[in-house]
Formats: sequence, structure tokens, C-alpha cells
Amino acid sequence: MFEVFFSHILKKVSLTENDKENIKTYFIAKKLRKKSFLLEEGEVCKYLSFVEKGLLKSYNIDQKGVEHINMFATEGWWIADICSFFSAEKAVLNIDALEDAELLMISLQDFEKMTLEVPIMDRYFRILFQNSLFTKEKRLMSAITHTAEEKYILITQNNPELIQRVPQHLIASYLGITPETLSRIKKNILIK
Amino acid sequence: MFEVFFSHILKKVSLTENDKENIKTYFIAKKLRKKSFLLEEGEVCKYLSFVEKGLLKSYNIDQKGVEHINMFATEGWWIADICSFFSAEKAVLNIDALEDAELLMISLQDFEKMTLEVPIMDRYFRILFQNSLFTKEKRLMSAITHTAEEKYILITQNNPELIQRVPQHLIASYLGITPETLSRIKKNILIK
Repeated sequence: MFEVFFSHILKKVSLTENDKENIKTYFIAKKLRKKSFLLEEGEVCKYLSFVEKGLLKSYNIDQKGVEHINMFATEGWWIADICSFFSAEKAVLNIDALEDAELLMISLQDFEKMTLEVPIMDRYFRILFQNSLFTKEKRLMSAITHTAEEKYILITQNNPELIQRVPQHLIASYLGITPETLSRIKKNILIK
Repeated sequence: MFEVFFSHILKKVSLTENDKENIKTYFIAKKLRKKSFLLEEGEVCKYLSFVEKGLLKSYNIDQKGVEHINMFATEGWWIADICSFFSAEKAVLNIDALEDAELLMISLQDFEKMTLEVPIMDRYFRILFQNSLFTKEKRLMSAITHTAEEKYILITQNNPELIQRVPQHLIASYLGITPETLSRIKKNILIK
């Protein structure tokens, strides 16, 4: 445990051995079996979770029962219902494991304590949230300006590994298209 | 200058007089006349801007020539094409002034310098980006789950001042509806 975690953090900020020992004390390790839930809609999201191993997805189900993928998280990613985590309101997202997973989880109270105790973590999370904001903004704009085919090509370029690990019908859900449309797009790309 | 700026920052973190003096050196003050552009689509967004006075909007124009409002910024808000600012890619957003404005602007290079020099600003921006992420996530979810009427009621509750200051056709654009639909919604609410 903590190998992927610290290697990920050290890409963005420097940590002393003392910082590392200190940080570790705020996290809880959890194993999650494939198909198990980390969070269900309507609960409060009590933890911000780092994926040390495995693959998870967050999603919501609309009134027609259709699943909309919010994000996928593999090794090195954080996952939560961020609104619920920071506000203690009920979660609107579900999170479950697509593969057996190992997580490092921190509560909001410990998150606040840790950033006060180890201020460099404020810098780490500033950069992390900044990048998330950036990604979310890009995805919003992409939703407006790109065709489904262009979106699919972007994923294959930016997250080639995800395309291999995630079932195709979930990639389609993430893109907001049907699995049939995704099949057609993939055939078109092969022909080009 | 800097009154609204520091009062806003001090709501989130503590600053010494020395911090304040230090921070000031990284910002450029700029006055922007009503209807002037702070940023045009296709340029690189070189500054992250704090609104000391006035009202601005960021928006993009789709291929059909329709304006989509990204956000409004009044006193105490930051505004930029965040993707362009952090990546130096071309901006997809336009930003212009709906009222005469006074801004405090920082470049990316100075932003990096300032957070290294005054680490408490990492904490401030961590909280700021965290809240933005939260708001953006809520807006995305709201787009899926709320009706236009519910969205309008949410704005009147969360930003009553905005409803007074922003022309109605722009509120309609922000909500993704026509001005006619917005008029109908407002009548309905009055009747209830």
C-alpha cells in the first residue's frame, strides 16, 4: 500500500519522510471486490478515495433508468461524489468497482486536519483540483463542440488503457451515445 | 483597489501584512469599460482576473451563432478561460464586461511564483478550486436533473443580486432556454 499513492503525489510536490509518515496516519485502507459499491446514491459520501489498484466508475441513473457515467478511476486517480463529500449532502452519484480494487480513503475531518498539519498537501490538492476543473471544463466544452467520433478518438489518445479495461457499453455511456453508435464509430475509424 | 480582494481572501485564509504586500506585487490593475473584451476566442488567456468592481460574463458562440453563457462574475469572483490560462492553448471562451469593471490580474508565471513565495495562497486556491469544482459538478447534475423552472428558482435563491444586474436574455442563455420560456417561467412563479 501507499506505493502508487506517494509516487503520484511526488509527481506534483516534494515530501519529506516525516511528511509521508504523517500523511499515512490520516488514511484508511480498504479492499473492494469487483461489482461492490463504494457509494450509493442517497448516502453521504464520507470519504475521498485514492485508487491504489483496480478500476472504479461513478455514475448516476436518470429517471428513465439510464446510466450516465460521470468518470472512471484507475490507479493514481481520486474518486468521490465531490459535492456530497464537501457539503455532507446526499450523494447523487453511485460508485462501484469494475475490477477488484484497493483504496486509500480519507474523511473530510481528516482532510482538513492533514492540510493544516502538512501544508504542502494544500499545494498538492490545489494542483489536483485545478487539473480536475480543467478536465471538467474541457469535457463540458467537448460535449458542445465535438462529435461522438471526435470524442472517442480523444479518449483513445488520452486514455488508451481505459479503452482496453472498460466494457464498451460503459465507454458508450460515458460518451453519451448508444453501444450501436460506438460500434459504428469504431468501424468507421478502422476504415479511415 | 485590493479592498474586495483581501476581504474575499481573508474569508478563507489568514494573511499577515507582509503576505499582503508580497501578494500585491504579483497583480496588475486594469479598468475595463462596459462592452469591452477581456478575452476573445482564439487568443491565449494570459491572466486570471479577480473582479474588484463590476460585472463580466464568459461565454462561447456555437456554430449556429448562438451564445452560451459559461459564467457571470461580479465583485469577489475570479474569471478566466481556465483551460487556456493553465495550458496556454487557444481560448474557447469570450469574456466581456456587462458593466464598467475594475480587475486585478495575475499571469500564470506570477501565479506559480506567488504560491511558492506565499504558500498560504496554495490553501486559498485549493479551497477556491474545490468550490469551483463543486459548483461545476452541481451545474452539470442540475442540467440533467432539474427543469428550467427549478434552475431559475435556484438562481434567485443563490444569486438574487445577479437576477437584478444581468439582462434577462443572458439569464435565459445561462439556463439554456429562450427568453420567451424564461418570461413564461417568471409569470408561472408569480402566479404560484
